[in-house]
Amino acid sequence: MPDHFEEMWRAIAPVGRSQRSGGYFRQPLTDAERELDSWFVEQAGARGLRLESDPFGNRIAWWDSGSGPGVVTGSHLDSVLDGGAYDGPLGVVTALAAVEVLRERGFRPARPIGVSVFVEEEGSRFGLACLGSRLATGTIAWENARDLSDRDGVRLDDAMAAAGLDLENPQPWLGSGAIGWFVELHVEQGRDLVDRGAAIGVASRIWPHGRYRVEISGEPNHAGTTRMEDRRDPMLTYAMTALAANKHARLAGQRATFGRVETTPNSTNSVPSQVTAWLDARCESDEALAALVGTITRQGAERAARDGTTLTVTAESVSGAVDFDPDLARRIAVDHESGDWPVLPTQAGHDAGILSARGIPSAMLFVRNPSGISHSPAEHAEVPDCLAGVDALAETLARLAS
Amino acid sequence: MPDHFEEMWRAIAPVGRSQRSGGYFRQPLTDAERELDSWFVEQAGARGLRLESDPFGNRIAWWDSGSGPGVVTGSHLDSVLDGGAYDGPLGVVTALAAVEVLRERGFRPARPIGVSVFVEEEGSRFGLACLGSRLATGTIAWENARDLSDRDGVRLDDAMAAAGLDLENPQPWLGSGAIGWFVELHVEQGRDLVDRGAAIGVASRIWPHGRYRVEISGEPNHAGTTRMEDRRDPMLTYAMTALAANKHARLAGQRATFGRVETTPNSTNSVPSQVTAWLDARCESDEALAALVGTITRQGAERAARDGTTLTVTAESVSGAVDFDPDLARRIAVDHESGDWPVLPTQAGHDAGILSARGIPSAMLFVRNPSGISHSPAEHAEVPDCLAGVDALAETLARLAS
Repeated sequence: MPDHFEEMWRAIAPVGRSQRSGGYFRQPLTDAERELDSWFVEQAGARGLRLESDPFGNRIAWWDSGSGPGVVTGSHLDSVLDGGAYDGPLGVVTALAAVEVLRERGFRPARPIGVSVFVEEEGSRFGLACLGSRLATGTIAWENARDLSDRDGVRLDDAMAAAGLDLENPQPWLGSGAIGWFVELHVEQGRDLVDRGAAIGVASRIWPHGRYRVEISGEPNHAGTTRMEDRRDPMLTYAMTALAANKHARLAGQRATFGRVETTPNSTNSVPSQVTAWLDARCESDEALAALVGTITRQGAERAARDGTTLTVTAESVSGAVDFDPDLARRIAVDHESGDWPVLPTQAGHDAGILSARGIPSAMLFVRNPSGISHSPAEHAEVPDCLAGVDALAETLARLAS
Repeated sequence: MPDHFEEMWRAIAPVGRSQRSGGYFRQPLTDAERELDSWFVEQAGARGLRLESDPFGNRIAWWDSGSGPGVVTGSHLDSVLDGGAYDGPLGVVTALAAVEVLRERGFRPARPIGVSVFVEEEGSRFGLACLGSRLATGTIAWENARDLSDRDGVRLDDAMAAAGLDLENPQPWLGSGAIGWFVELHVEQGRDLVDRGAAIGVASRIWPHGRYRVEISGEPNHAGTTRMEDRRDPMLTYAMTALAANKHARLAGQRATFGRVETTPNSTNSVPSQVTAWLDARCESDEALAALVGTITRQGAERAARDGTTLTVTAESVSGAVDFDPDLARRIAVDHESGDWPVLPTQAGHDAGILSARGIPSAMLFVRNPSGISHSPAEHAEVPDCLAGVDALAETLARLAS
């Protein structure tokens, strides 16, 4: 059994890996991510699973058995820029391995079991996280999504067409009732399980999360001859806004991050004309999120007034809190040989949250992460914990498909 | 006479101009800048000027006349990213026009007059300002310069070879004594002349100037799940350093700018692993520059200690104060029909500063800039002031070559 997991893990380890950092660049619809998609199709075929694909590139490999709505488990194969090996692929590889475990045990599911892959979960290329699951569930309409473009100006519809996807009047896909339950296994992205001494946990909820584009315009000028008091420098407004975001999130026990910033013209000897930065904010409640973003915007605008710049904040995506089905979480978490699995919230968004919000009973399993580090080349999980994840997922599927 | 200037000005106006911003992208050894170089060669040929070129792409078009070391005037044709039309080209076009003016007046120079163009004055591509004049004067050795590379990793020697330059053992070029005096006309990059109600000014000195690369390393992590107090976020260190630079330069009456910043991996939902930013600092004395950079570095390092990041500051180039020859400045500035021209310092670096530091008596003429704005699409000079610049330059050449 361990062999299934480790063999697959070794097979995908080199794909999209940076020689320099050791991190992964598996942006959606790029060569590396398409190679993983082909690998998934191969794995499904080798196991005799029936492949279902939608116009957006999402996949489910079905173990057809029994009747009624199925139990689907899976995750995604794309990564953030310079991301870790586990965020996404761990949920896909453990799902395929769990199906093997159940088969080897001679388990006969009373309903179909599917292994899924959603595209562009991270939003690292087209800016909208959970894009594949949003399209599949109709959470975002294709007419609104097709105009999204990446940093090089490549449009989503063009990138999808180039990948061979057929986008003639594509329809949402998951409203059919074919999915009775969705379970996503994921590497933990914090240290709760480490603190609790547990290898496996179950998600209770996802914090509300928003991405906001902060555009600050000033007046381009010469970096030497322009007196400091004559400048309208958007970099100063940005710097103060970034510090304010950190301070207020810290004081409130929430999260706010500026991880992406672009400067125009980005020239050493020029006062910039514009700084555009992206605020990632997550809070324990919708109200707290609105309050935090409001406070950061207000402080940024006050500084803009002092700097003679203008600041606009545009929400690119805001996802409300997701409370996973508590009955489902309990059904999964209790009565194990090793005792109950802890149930804990997460600050990270996931496709499971999108499906849950669309009325599909969903749950998440977490695998312990020794450092808690994620979205980084240093993201890690120990092999025994990954194998415990395979077993936990097999047990969960058995409970739901019996 | 006005026609000479305006015809040339119209001819080069479209080259390298951005449709979007109206600014110029004339980076050295790119198509736009090479087109301007070809245009200059053509102009020299059309006027029967003898073209002298060096292995680095620098040019002098000689009006051979009389004997002894020559009087050279000129500037550069490259621009900063999204720069103005005047910074550089104004000095080249007025120089060619001034030669026409002198010829039409029947002036017979007692010594040769040359019109020059130096490459990569702005340092916008290879990061080192006045690169062409530094190479021409031996201020920087080719062995040290050839390894410079642009943002895409293209090396200087490869870019020069691709432009057809012959770099087999190139030698410095301007140590020969062929240049007795150098005069550079430039659009003013401040509002001193506006305040004084004068169209033309003469430079007294150039402030010391340095470019410093500030590298801040932290720990990449997930923007949602990582608690604020567990982060080592280099963006915070950068933001505080940028604000400190502005504050200390303002209080001291000096200049400090962060106009270029690069974030790794530059991902919205990741705490960055690294932020690299470039500090441009200029002060009225070498001591003030060292003190300002020291203060900014110290405050940045203190913040880094709080943030759990590391900060290193590397000087990419530092140019000491340049005092132009006061006798030459006086000789140029006094006894005009309209009265004396004002003599004033500048905070901008120029090739004239490099030549002056190498012992070539040098001077600069400034043409009034109504807004003072430079390194920006909004950079401007009125046509009558540009024509006054042609006349002033012709008068200066006549004084020095008589």
